[in-house]
Amino acid sequence: MASRSLAVFGFGNVGRVLCEQAVAVGCAVPVIADSSAAIVKKSGLTREDLETLSAAKASGTRLADAVSSVAEATVATPTEAVNFMATLPGKPGLADVSANANAANEYLLDALKLKLPISLANKKPLSEDLASFQSLTADKSLIGYEATVGAGLPVICTLQRMIDSGDRVTHVEGQLSGTLGYILSALQAGGKFSEIVREAKAQGFTEPDPRDDLSGTDVARKALILARTMGENISMDQITVEALFPESFASLPLDEFMDRLPEMDADIEAKVQEAASKGEMLRYAAVVEPGQPINVGLVSVKPGAPLASLQGTDNLVSFESAFYNTSPTVVRGPGAGLEVTAAGVLADYLLLTR
Amino acid sequence: MASRSLAVFGFGNVGRVLCEQAVAVGCAVPVIADSSAAIVKKSGLTREDLETLSAAKASGTRLADAVSSVAEATVATPTEAVNFMATLPGKPGLADVSANANAANEYLLDALKLKLPISLANKKPLSEDLASFQSLTADKSLIGYEATVGAGLPVICTLQRMIDSGDRVTHVEGQLSGTLGYILSALQAGGKFSEIVREAKAQGFTEPDPRDDLSGTDVARKALILARTMGENISMDQITVEALFPESFASLPLDEFMDRLPEMDADIEAKVQEAASKGEMLRYAAVVEPGQPINVGLVSVKPGAPLASLQGTDNLVSFESAFYNTSPTVVRGPGAGLEVTAAGVLADYLLLTR
Repeated sequence: MASRSLAVFGFGNVGRVLCEQAVAVGCAVPVIADSSAAIVKKSGLTREDLETLSAAKASGTRLADAVSSVAEATVATPTEAVNFMATLPGKPGLADVSANANAANEYLLDALKLKLPISLANKKPLSEDLASFQSLTADKSLIGYEATVGAGLPVICTLQRMIDSGDRVTHVEGQLSGTLGYILSALQAGGKFSEIVREAKAQGFTEPDPRDDLSGTDVARKALILARTMGENISMDQITVEALFPESFASLPLDEFMDRLPEMDADIEAKVQEAASKGEMLRYAAVVEPGQPINVGLVSVKPGAPLASLQGTDNLVSFESAFYNTSPTVVRGPGAGLEVTAAGVLADYLLLTR
Repeated sequence: MASRSLAVFGFGNVGRVLCEQAVAVGCAVPVIADSSAAIVKKSGLTREDLETLSAAKASGTRLADAVSSVAEATVATPTEAVNFMATLPGKPGLADVSANANAANEYLLDALKLKLPISLANKKPLSEDLASFQSLTADKSLIGYEATVGAGLPVICTLQRMIDSGDRVTHVEGQLSGTLGYILSALQAGGKFSEIVREAKAQGFTEPDPRDDLSGTDVARKALILARTMGENISMDQITVEALFPESFASLPLDEFMDRLPEMDADIEAKVQEAASKGEMLRYAAVVEPGQPINVGLVSVKPGAPLASLQGTDNLVSFESAFYNTSPTVVRGPGAGLEVTAAGVLADYLLLTR
């Protein structure tokens, strides 16, 4: 195996696990970066180095201020770190597991110019302006972004295989949020919306502000990435997103939002009942069809439909096409989590450098 | 795009569709081969050439005898055809959609020696002797075999991504035969085994001799390919395969076998009932776990299990691993058919030559 080395941008929980996984499969990690700085250690960060830096991060220390705790490590700008990676022999690459909206301009496009393959869990660079998506994905031999949709699940690769083989994808629908899947399952089981959301927040199943899940924005980003992969030249503002709270609740302080959750119960309960009255089930899904408006929101699905079989936090994506016209291809499983997200990023990098 | 050209070995129905799909995505097809000969046309076979040759094949004419119907085409041995492909600029490759058990020695290993990527729907080269599997898959940048299991469904790529990323796959189970899926669904719906098999044969859902499906051998080959991909160094004789007919029926003339099908009804009905008495469902599945005997045969599955959701001819494969330990990754959809099989082969070739 040609020697591999990965620069990891984003050193939160996924970044930490990705570094561990990379080292475990024999891949060096000579660069890690957060928003404060990149740390470069030419010989590769050791497990001990990574533990030291993880502990520092966990205690609130930025990488820029933690570099002195690692022997032979220096601080660099993102550009310097990318340039350094490009000097490495073998098959260096860059992983972006940050949530940096400026990643394309700060380091990803630089990496591509130097023919460094990039592997993304960061959805932002692919779901902001269309020009960035097109620049980043122009050479598919240099980018993997499986982990932006469904974490490690084979969603993008399934779609890309269909497109490459000349199949015409006609309909993609997906449950792309573990949190919303959990909430809809619990609603289906008869729970009250307000209680389910409070419980989910208490268990850590939601973002600190549950509106970040309930707004559907994260699902819309994933839908946009799917649509753009299908060749649709569209932007976020062309996606209709249904939030699971009224517009007037968007700017409430978090405490007040949580207190006023019960005001939404009747409305959502009515939607669950309406679906049930037709023998159907309510799901929160993204629906993408070529040339059609993209919808992200509540849908009522018939028993036997792919989305109907879902329970709990699993994600599911169903693909219909010219070739898959009698029965769709369906991919299902955990669509979030540190290990599966990191594994999705690592698998892309290894595939790009095979 | 670098110019692509594909040699297609096996010119039955899948081969014909593969040629059409390849030409449709701008890939030249300068070589096609059946068991009689390879036909080489340096400028690439045109749609008209392919139609002419398809018609000849459909009327029972071997390629060796049909070559004169195509201008500028010559007959070659497999070795000569492979050597010719290796002289082509761009990114030539070879697809094997035959059922040739000697494909490894006749052309696949030659192709690999010349660094031609190979893409297989032919299960035989990977499910005969272990040494052939190992030689063929030694350099994963030169082989794709997605279409050997579940046709175009993302089964092998999902498994390979897990393995590459350092995940430890612990349990793979699959419904890998559309025909057996159809039969088990119909049994579950209360049908009689003998009537279901006769009807399936009449509809063309089975092989001409239904025992080729009912024996489980084809499923066992797929299970073996999955197991070997997982690093299990095993052979077919280490797989326990349950045939859906008694040993004594194996050598009956086909007519007599069909006549005597009702003798099996009671036994299979009892198994369906036994599963039902536990609130479970009967499926025909392959179960692969590292270091464990591989079983292919009837299994009783609980409601809510991935295999329980299946109906009709869809295939399904479920992967559990160290990372996917709370809920498996599940891939489901049509696992047979001309278009989806050909598309699986073509996607592999395009990915290998990206």
